[in-house]
Amino acid sequence: MKVFVLTLFPGMFDGVLQHSMLKRARDRNLLEVHLYNIRDFAQDKHKTTDDVPYGGGGGMVMKAEPIFLAVEHVIAAHQLTAPHIVYLTPQGETLTQHVARTLATHEELILLCGHYEEIDERVRTALVHQEISIGDYVMTGGELAAMVVIDVVSRMIPDVIGNAQSVISDSFYDGLLDYPHYTRPQEFRGMAVPDVLLSGHHKQIEAWRREQALQRTRQRRPDLLSS
Amino acid sequence: MKVFVLTLFPGMFDGVLQHSMLKRARDRNLLEVHLYNIRDFAQDKHKTTDDVPYGGGGGMVMKAEPIFLAVEHVIAAHQLTAPHIVYLTPQGETLTQHVARTLATHEELILLCGHYEEIDERVRTALVHQEISIGDYVMTGGELAAMVVIDVVSRMIPDVIGNAQSVISDSFYDGLLDYPHYTRPQEFRGMAVPDVLLSGHHKQIEAWRREQALQRTRQRRPDLLSS
Repeated sequence: MKVFVLTLFPGMFDGVLQHSMLKRARDRNLLEVHLYNIRDFAQDKHKTTDDVPYGGGGGMVMKAEPIFLAVEHVIAAHQLTAPHIVYLTPQGETLTQHVARTLATHEELILLCGHYEEIDERVRTALVHQEISIGDYVMTGGELAAMVVIDVVSRMIPDVIGNAQSVISDSFYDGLLDYPHYTRPQEFRGMAVPDVLLSGHHKQIEAWRREQALQRTRQRRPDLLSS
Repeated sequence: MKVFVLTLFPGMFDGVLQHSMLKRARDRNLLEVHLYNIRDFAQDKHKTTDDVPYGGGGGMVMKAEPIFLAVEHVIAAHQLTAPHIVYLTPQGETLTQHVARTLATHEELILLCGHYEEIDERVRTALVHQEISIGDYVMTGGELAAMVVIDVVSRMIPDVIGNAQSVISDSFYDGLLDYPHYTRPQEFRGMAVPDVLLSGHHKQIEAWRREQALQRTRQRRPDLLSS
């Protein structure tokens, strides 16, 4: 999968792309991430990427032209055939495992990160295919949202995750929250591991885990059970 | 506000903390972020921070001891008086603007990032005050979630955001999605700015924006209107 990120702050991605799973996926050529600075596509000598809104009001609005030019450059430079252009915004469709799975079907993803208040509406209507929100909260820009999308979607690329079992038992893969996990030592500061986990009875362990997962889901996220 | 992050990948935070709003907030001493590597608190010579789960199954579980020691070190080293300890996990309470506002009331936040499959349950029951999820999707670790929490919460610290108006009109601050924004040029590739925004009639502009916000919310997120 190839991911192209358009942002005013490409440096924000440094740490995240150079560690852990994303680094390994890139090292193994399962994932390419290309960062582009929208400012490089501004046409005036001051490299202006934002301007005041028509109709007044506070805040600045990101200009359409540098974003159009950036997208066109990416498509031409990488000879993209079917890029899926996503704008990260709190107004978008809420990201879920299901939404991520549909995103993961695209071989070429262009992720557009807003900053400042908003972007010119013409970008949304004439360029963007899908708007995605990672949750109902306000962030400074779309950069962190883009990193979240890259992480979640990358995990769905075949061979990226080493231990398939680990993905399967992750929360949300079976619609329930996860059961409690314990590792050594058997007793830590007076707190013991539940006996059943030490019993060696695989069926009982499986039943206990299922019951714990159900109980936790019922308590914390009943909405997951009713849907 | 002081934030202490416990993670196995402190380097992941480099880019995000050194740009944009979070950099400015830190430069102005409105926000402190201290990163701690959980591995530094492992007690064996191999610096082990995870181990196999009791009861079997795939994946690894983060050990309790290094995490307890890390938290105790942070509290002692910084003389914390009322640290609020948050574990980032898809099983937690879903982050919203409202949840963020309650987090922002804490002067001292300790953010614990899991990695691998899960952490030992005794960390959750005996150490953590609150579990937070940034959304219903599976990520490789809690690091990106911690960055999201830091960004969202920091915006609520007085004086961090320069333009107060900008925060107020941001999506979700009044329970509606945002209205369309336009900036120069007036016509771009045949697409014109709506006449009303050029009219200079502030009341009409206000009414148009309200109607657009309502319409967009009705189409995209009717759940925001009914709640």
